[in-house]
Amino acid sequence: MRIQILGSAAGGRFPQWNCGCGNCVAVREGKFSGKARTQAQLALSADGSTWFLAGASPDLASQIESSPALHPRALRHSPVAGVVLGSADLDHVVGLLLLRELQPLRVYAAPSILRILREENSMFGMLNRVEPQVVWTSMNSGALFPLLSADGKDSRLRCEVCYLSGRYPKYVKTNTADLARDEATAALFFESASGKRVAYVPAVGSLSDTLLAKIHRADLLLFDGTFWSDDELLRVQGSGETAHQMGHIPVEESLRLLRSIKVERKMFVHLNSTNPILNEASPEHQAVRQAGWEVAEDNWQLEL
Amino acid sequence: MRIQILGSAAGGRFPQWNCGCGNCVAVREGKFSGKARTQAQLALSADGSTWFLAGASPDLASQIESSPALHPRALRHSPVAGVVLGSADLDHVVGLLLLRELQPLRVYAAPSILRILREENSMFGMLNRVEPQVVWTSMNSGALFPLLSADGKDSRLRCEVCYLSGRYPKYVKTNTADLARDEATAALFFESASGKRVAYVPAVGSLSDTLLAKIHRADLLLFDGTFWSDDELLRVQGSGETAHQMGHIPVEESLRLLRSIKVERKMFVHLNSTNPILNEASPEHQAVRQAGWEVAEDNWQLEL
Repeated sequence: MRIQILGSAAGGRFPQWNCGCGNCVAVREGKFSGKARTQAQLALSADGSTWFLAGASPDLASQIESSPALHPRALRHSPVAGVVLGSADLDHVVGLLLLRELQPLRVYAAPSILRILREENSMFGMLNRVEPQVVWTSMNSGALFPLLSADGKDSRLRCEVCYLSGRYPKYVKTNTADLARDEATAALFFESASGKRVAYVPAVGSLSDTLLAKIHRADLLLFDGTFWSDDELLRVQGSGETAHQMGHIPVEESLRLLRSIKVERKMFVHLNSTNPILNEASPEHQAVRQAGWEVAEDNWQLEL
Repeated sequence: MRIQILGSAAGGRFPQWNCGCGNCVAVREGKFSGKARTQAQLALSADGSTWFLAGASPDLASQIESSPALHPRALRHSPVAGVVLGSADLDHVVGLLLLRELQPLRVYAAPSILRILREENSMFGMLNRVEPQVVWTSMNSGALFPLLSADGKDSRLRCEVCYLSGRYPKYVKTNTADLARDEATAALFFESASGKRVAYVPAVGSLSDTLLAKIHRADLLLFDGTFWSDDELLRVQGSGETAHQMGHIPVEESLRLLRSIKVERKMFVHLNSTNPILNEASPEHQAVRQAGWEVAEDNWQLEL
């Protein structure tokens, strides 16, 4: 299985357009010991020719362009066969609107997420202007399912979803009583034919035993690295919510909670612009590395 | 007045993610006599410190980042005070969703466009999570109005809108009988305190006498350069609509129709990936230049 990290930042990118925090200023001035990053985005493939996306970030068009494996190989073509969505957060779904150029794709999401996109937001209708175009497919937790392209071809990748007790984005208008409580946020697991597993958990507010057990079985873990500390936004900006209030376990806490996991390769992803681990010269970055974790970067190509 | 062309391509960018036409392949391979381009986007300012955007392209976050004048100058700040929308096309409005990070902004648009965004697409609710954030302001045709920031401060730029007989995007669900027929597409005119005028007409299907008269009064014209010829998509892709069916006058026709206009500087913008004028070595590009027109590029900075 090939895995490309097309983007590794949290919503808003790094640097963020209206953020003048120390990290953002330094990286704009070229004085930062670390890299700029686009919003979190994964691409996965069993054979290197058919690819599935985990999430659809607002930076998706430039992310695809910067990855030769995802370039078209015919007049109208894309190696991207489909997208698996783990939430309805803007930084996870806006990229679908960039894939509107009449391309056949299969989009997997929880029933509640599909409802939010298709019933509350008419713009996604641009993905169904012609036939064949986007095939919307509900996914349920509990079992591996094969990832199929729009025409039903098996990609030889399988996916398993684990719904987390997250919250729906603040824009959602549908009465939450009409949405499944547990479908707001998902951890996504991708498995190759040989049984290698990637765990993609970019947003998680608490660790259940079920999730922990599934993480233990992964060969590669990409985990929520949004904030280093719970009060990070409050300290940097002087206002805002805590990491936990926003549905994220802070990294300093995750390092403790996940101290004993035995995963071959583990990295933090979905990094907010304020997170000190972006700075490779920081003690926080060093602490992460010393604990055996990596800090994901854009354009990393991995193989399992 | 300062004008920045932050993006000059039509919807889908150049190259386009799923397009393997001659232009797209050549520019990806570095063998093209011309430049890659992001989606059409203008920024305008009377004083160089407060900026208004014409349109909100899906590439807006990277476009802002690549323009130092638009970088924040405080912990949470943006020189971008507002946005003027000329249509509800995705390549003209998706960028608003990228400006969601709690920043005060004023967004001007036709009443029908505001209705499509705010009533059909719940995601735009992210622009009204806190107070102050986005102030939605209806604009009507027929008179210059001052462009104000969200807190009412005058930018010393004025705007005039001229509604064109375009069509609403195909995603729109509201019954068209409930939308004003003439508000689907607008030409936007920006005027400085000294009376200098920019005409921004990225999508226009026919030239009315009213529009022509307004274009004549401009010092800088940015005009619809989507397609060179009416049957361009059909010839390049083997399928698709004509330029006119998609609401665009092809460039070869505009060169004739606008032969006699006396505008100091005139350029084609909103260039589709299939357009031969993107290729600076093409006879079509030469024809445009010989007729006294320019082919707009990303990152051009102009002053009037």
